[in-house]
Amino acid sequence: MDLKKRIQRIYHHIPNGIDAILIKNGSDGFIDKNFFYVTNINQGLFEGCALILFPDGSAHLLVTSLEQEIAHKTTENVHIFKDRKELLEKISDILDSSKKIGINSSSLLYTDYLFLSSHMDYKSFIDVSKGFIITRMVKDASEIATIRKACKIADKVAEIIPQFIKKNMYEFELAAEIDYHLQRFGAKKPSFETISSFGSNTAMPHYSHGNKRLEKGDFILCDFGATVDNYHSDTTRTFIFGFGSQRQKEIYETVKNAQLLAFKMIKPGIIANSVHQKTFEFIQQSPFKDRFIHSTGHSLGLNVHDPGVGFNVLCQETLNENMVLTVEPGVYLPEFGGVRIEDDILVTKSGCELLTQSTSDFIEI
Amino acid sequence: MDLKKRIQRIYHHIPNGIDAILIKNGSDGFIDKNFFYVTNINQGLFEGCALILFPDGSAHLLVTSLEQEIAHKTTENVHIFKDRKELLEKISDILDSSKKIGINSSSLLYTDYLFLSSHMDYKSFIDVSKGFIITRMVKDASEIATIRKACKIADKVAEIIPQFIKKNMYEFELAAEIDYHLQRFGAKKPSFETISSFGSNTAMPHYSHGNKRLEKGDFILCDFGATVDNYHSDTTRTFIFGFGSQRQKEIYETVKNAQLLAFKMIKPGIIANSVHQKTFEFIQQSPFKDRFIHSTGHSLGLNVHDPGVGFNVLCQETLNENMVLTVEPGVYLPEFGGVRIEDDILVTKSGCELLTQSTSDFIEI
Repeated sequence: MDLKKRIQRIYHHIPNGIDAILIKNGSDGFIDKNFFYVTNINQGLFEGCALILFPDGSAHLLVTSLEQEIAHKTTENVHIFKDRKELLEKISDILDSSKKIGINSSSLLYTDYLFLSSHMDYKSFIDVSKGFIITRMVKDASEIATIRKACKIADKVAEIIPQFIKKNMYEFELAAEIDYHLQRFGAKKPSFETISSFGSNTAMPHYSHGNKRLEKGDFILCDFGATVDNYHSDTTRTFIFGFGSQRQKEIYETVKNAQLLAFKMIKPGIIANSVHQKTFEFIQQSPFKDRFIHSTGHSLGLNVHDPGVGFNVLCQETLNENMVLTVEPGVYLPEFGGVRIEDDILVTKSGCELLTQSTSDFIEI
Repeated sequence: MDLKKRIQRIYHHIPNGIDAILIKNGSDGFIDKNFFYVTNINQGLFEGCALILFPDGSAHLLVTSLEQEIAHKTTENVHIFKDRKELLEKISDILDSSKKIGINSSSLLYTDYLFLSSHMDYKSFIDVSKGFIITRMVKDASEIATIRKACKIADKVAEIIPQFIKKNMYEFELAAEIDYHLQRFGAKKPSFETISSFGSNTAMPHYSHGNKRLEKGDFILCDFGATVDNYHSDTTRTFIFGFGSQRQKEIYETVKNAQLLAFKMIKPGIIANSVHQKTFEFIQQSPFKDRFIHSTGHSLGLNVHDPGVGFNVLCQETLNENMVLTVEPGVYLPEFGGVRIEDDILVTKSGCELLTQSTSDFIEI
C-alpha cells in the first residue's frame, strides 16, 4: 500500500477537523513506529526526525543529513534540518495554516511535547494515538506478506535448533546460533533479545540468556523472531535435553492443549478477552493452577507487541479478519522450570491460519 | 556501585526539595535506561514498570509478575501489579507523603505523563532529567569496567572481520557473522543494528545492510558494538575489497588523520564542541570539504548515544575525567562511498585512553 493510501486510512480513524498530524521521533530507541508505517522506509534510524501528514494524503519528511539519501527514496517533500531550532522553524512553516494538530502521545516523549507546544502555543494539539492503533490493528496485504516472510524465517530456524544442542553448552551460545541463522535466512535482525534459557531459568518468562550450562533433563526454552522490513515474527519452542520426566511432560501437554483450545476459538466476531479467559481457565483447572502468569497473546506487526488488541484480561476488542496475533500460553514453576509454546496467527474469514508451522511437539533431544 | 549510592548521586544533581523521583517505563522499546542505571538489573524487559527513588537512597520497584523473580534479586521493596489501575494505586500509596515528584521527561511518554498527572493532580511534577544526564555523564568504576568488556569484545570481532570477507557475499551475511561473533565472545546482543555496507552504500551513514553483493574495489564499512550488562561499545572499521584507488586511500588518510587530531585534543577541561570544530575544520580543508556530515562523537554508556556530552557543534560541556565517548569522523561521497573510523575513548587525568584498539589501518583484503 502506498504512502498516500496509508495516510488517508489513518485520517479515516481520527476525529474530524484535524488539519495535520505531526509525528516526532525521540532519540535512540524512542522512535515512533508509525513513522515507518506511513513511509515504508526500511533503512535508517531517523532519531529526532519528524513527519507531517495532511488529510489529502501528502506528507513532509524532516530529516538530518544523515538520513537524507534514504529519505529521498520515499517522498519528494524532504526537508533537511541541522538542529532542533531549524527543525522547529521548518515544522512551523509547514504547519503555518494548520490550527488543530494531531499528535501520537503514546510514542511522543513528554519533553518533545513540551518543546513543540511551547513554541507553537497558538495551535491546539490533539491526541490521535487511537487512530494509529485502530489503523494498524488490521493488516493490509503488503503487511501480511512481510509478516509471512518473518514467520517463515523463524520456522526454518526452529526446525534446526535441535542440531545446535550440545551437552554443557551455554545459554548464550544457543542464542548466538539462533540469531545467526535468523539473519542468514533473511532477517534484518532478531525481533528482540532472543530468549534461550535452560533448566530453572525457563521459569522466568523475561529472562533472556546467560551463563548457565545445559544439563540432562533441562527444559530449553527458545523465544525468538525475525525482523523483515521493520515487521516481526515472535515464536517460542520448548525442548527437553534428554528424556522428560512425567511432570515435565504433563506441563508440556497442558500448555499444548491450552494453545489448541485458543486456536479453535479464534475467528472474526469473538471478543479477544474471551480467548484469554478460556485458555486461562483451562490451565487453572489443570494441576498448574496460578502458574500461567501472563496474557495469552498480543498483536504483532511493526511492534513486537503491537497495541490495540490482544488476548488479555482487559481487551474488549472484537477480532477482525486480517488481524495478526500471537498465541502463547505458558506454565512456570519457580525453581523448577517453565514451558511456553508460541505461534503467530492470522485471523481469516472463518477462523485462523497459523503463520508459524514448525514442529512444536515435545522434542527430547 | 550499589543502588543506594547511585540514588544519592542522582539527588546530588537535582534541585533541592524533590520528595521523590518517579521513573515510568513505556512499552516495547520505550524504556527509561535510568531504570537499569539505578537497579543494575541485567535481565528482563520491564515494560510498563515503575521505580520510585527517595532521597535517603531507598527504592521501590513496581513490576508485573513477569519480572517478579528477576526484580527480587535487586531490592526488598518489590511491588507486583496486575494492570495500570493497580500500578497507579500502588504508586499513590508509596508517594502518599511526597508532594514534589521528580520525573524524567526525556524518557517519559507524554501519554504516561498524562496518566500519572491526571490521577495525582494534587502533586507537582518537576522535570529532573538534567540530573540523570549529569550523573551518567561521568562513569563510575563498575560502569567503566563493563564498557571495557564491551570494547574488548568488539576489538576481537574487528580483528577477525577480514576472515569472513568473500567475493560476491551479501552485506547481510557479513552482518550475521559480526553479530554471531559478538555474541560468541560474550555480548548479550549487538549494541544496535549492525552496519555492514558495501560500495556506494557506505556513503549513507545510517544504511545498515541489505542485498548488495561485494565487488572488487568496494569499501566495506562495519559499524557495530557489543552490549554487556546493558552497557555498550560502538566502533567502526572501514576496509577495502581488493586494492584501493588513489582517491579511496586519500579519503581514508583524511579520516584517519582527523581522528588522530581529535584524540590529541581530548583531555579534562576542554570544551567538547572545540574537539568537533577542529576535526571538522581539518576535513573542510581537505579535498573532501562538506563531506563530513555528522558530529565527531557522542557519549557512550547505557544508551549507545548517551545524552549530555558529545563532540558536536552545540555542546558546550567541559570534558571531565571518566567520561566515555566515541570519536568517529567520516567522509561520505554520494554514489561513490564513505569512510568512517570510530573508536571509544575514556577521558583520563591528562588525556584520553583508547578503549578500542583493534587495527584500524587501511586494510586491503
